[in-house]
Formats: sequence, structure tokens, C-alpha cells
Amino acid sequence: MLKKTIVLASLTLLSSAAVHAEDLFDAEDAVKYRQSVYQIFSAQAGVIGGMIKGEIPFDAAEINKRATNIGKVAPMLGDTYFPATRDVKESKLKEAAWNNMADFQDKGKVFGKALGELITASSDPDFNIKSARKTAGALFKGCKGCHEDYRAK
Amino acid sequence: MLKKTIVLASLTLLSSAAVHAEDLFDAEDAVKYRQSVYQIFSAQAGVIGGMIKGEIPFDAAEINKRATNIGKVAPMLGDTYFPATRDVKESKLKEAAWNNMADFQDKGKVFGKALGELITASSDPDFNIKSARKTAGALFKGCKGCHEDYRAK
Repeated sequence: MLKKTIVLASLTLLSSAAVHAEDLFDAEDAVKYRQSVYQIFSAQAGVIGGMIKGEIPFDAAEINKRATNIGKVAPMLGDTYFPATRDVKESKLKEAAWNNMADFQDKGKVFGKALGELITASSDPDFNIKSARKTAGALFKGCKGCHEDYRAK
Repeated sequence: MLKKTIVLASLTLLSSAAVHAEDLFDAEDAVKYRQSVYQIFSAQAGVIGGMIKGEIPFDAAEINKRATNIGKVAPMLGDTYFPATRDVKESKLKEAAWNNMADFQDKGKVFGKALGELITASSDPDFNIKSARKTAGALFKGCKGCHEDYRAK
């Protein structure tokens, strides 16, 4: 159920809901909100990454919790990608994202799929560091795929 | 069910889970994470506040969504209040919070209760702007109660 929700949310960064968001949020506030969602992604990813690199003791339940936390905030991104945010100076989103919206959306979809798979895999009793490296690796690849093309340094 | 989770989460800003958080997060990262959670609170509160002030058209489902979003991220605060964060320069948490931990926790509890009540009330078909003013007003009072004593300007 959660998996389905996440995939959908990631599919629709610029949904009809996002158009409505324009009536609810100032552009500057929306960018702060967006960056906060990504900061929360980053905090969770730090724990998952620490575990697959062996810097933090492996704990399947903890990985599941962190992936689920990403899934809780990911749908909020839909509130924040509306055209008026394009000119906000603090945004690190490259113009390329607006010019290649279909590809940007596809990258969101890849991320959402990898996240759903990590949530499912990490709730399996057989989930171990090897399967964590594979599934979390796919998630991090999803992050990187979008950052390279669409996030300014 | 969600209501219960929220109240519990707000009750335990410094739970045993928070002690464990020290092993998962750097203090600086935890403060960024904490501030991101509060930024997400703020984005949701802006919509709710806009509606009760009549600046945004009233929409019960939207208020319920915003309160629920706060409930999704509120438990994450438990990751971020561990002693090593006390010395992080960017934190706006006053020393008074550490010195009056029981009161700080109580204020979290008041906030959690008000949030649970807003979530419940806003899912009622009879929820209207008058009941929104009452229940969201209690939530904002909960925010303010803690900010006045424990958040630096």
C-alpha cells in the first residue's frame, strides 16, 4: 500500500495537485519547504549509507524505518514544484529540469520505484547487508541520476 | 491510530530512541534535520493559518492533509534531540530547554495533543471555519508556548 503511494507520488512532481500548490505557498517558502524535504531524505540516506558501508552496525529494521521516512515526506515534493519557484534564487534546481520536464519526472519515477523496492526488501526477514547494498545502491543511483543533470553544485 | 502515534512521539522528544540517534547522526546533521522538520511544520501551518484567517479559501480536506503531514514528520524530531546537539552553533534551542527538560517535554505533549485533536476534528464532515479556528488555534498556541521559552530569536 505504502509502496504504491510512494511510486505515485514520485511520478507526479508536477501534478494537478502541484498546480493547486501555487495557491497555497509563496514561491520562496515552497523552495525552503522543498529543500527541507531533501534534507530529511539526506538524514535518512546517511543512516542507510553508513550501514551499507559498515560504518554503523547493520540493522534491517532501522533501514526499513529510514526508507519509510523518505516515503513519508516524498509526496510533499509535489507541493513545491510549481512554475513560480523557477525564479527563486535559493533554488538549486537547474533550468534544465524545466526544459526537460518529462525526463525529470522519469527520474522521479526511477527513484520512487527504487524506494518502494527498498521498503519491501527491508521488511523481509532475509534482508541482509548484501541485499541492502543492492537495493539501497539502486536508490542512491536514483538520487545521483537526478542530481547530476538537474541540481546545481 | 495516527493520533496515538503522534501523541506518543511528541511525548518522547528525548526517548531511548533519541539516545540511540546519537549513534546514527552527527550533531550538526541532526540540527539541520531538526530544522527541516520544523520548516515542514511551518509550511503546513502557513496553509492552515491562511485558511483560518480567510486569506486562502477554506478546505477541510486540505487542513486535514496539512495536519496529517505535521504528524508524519513530528516523530522524526526524536532523532534530533540528543545531548551532543547542545553545542551546535546553528541551533536555536535555548539552554533553558536542557535545564527544564520536563517542561520542554510537557510542551511537546500539549502540541501533540492539539495536533491529534485537529486531525480528528478536520476529518469530521461538520468541520468548518469556526471549529478550525478553535482546534488550529490550540495547535498554534502549542507552537508559541514552546517558542517563547525555548527558541532563541
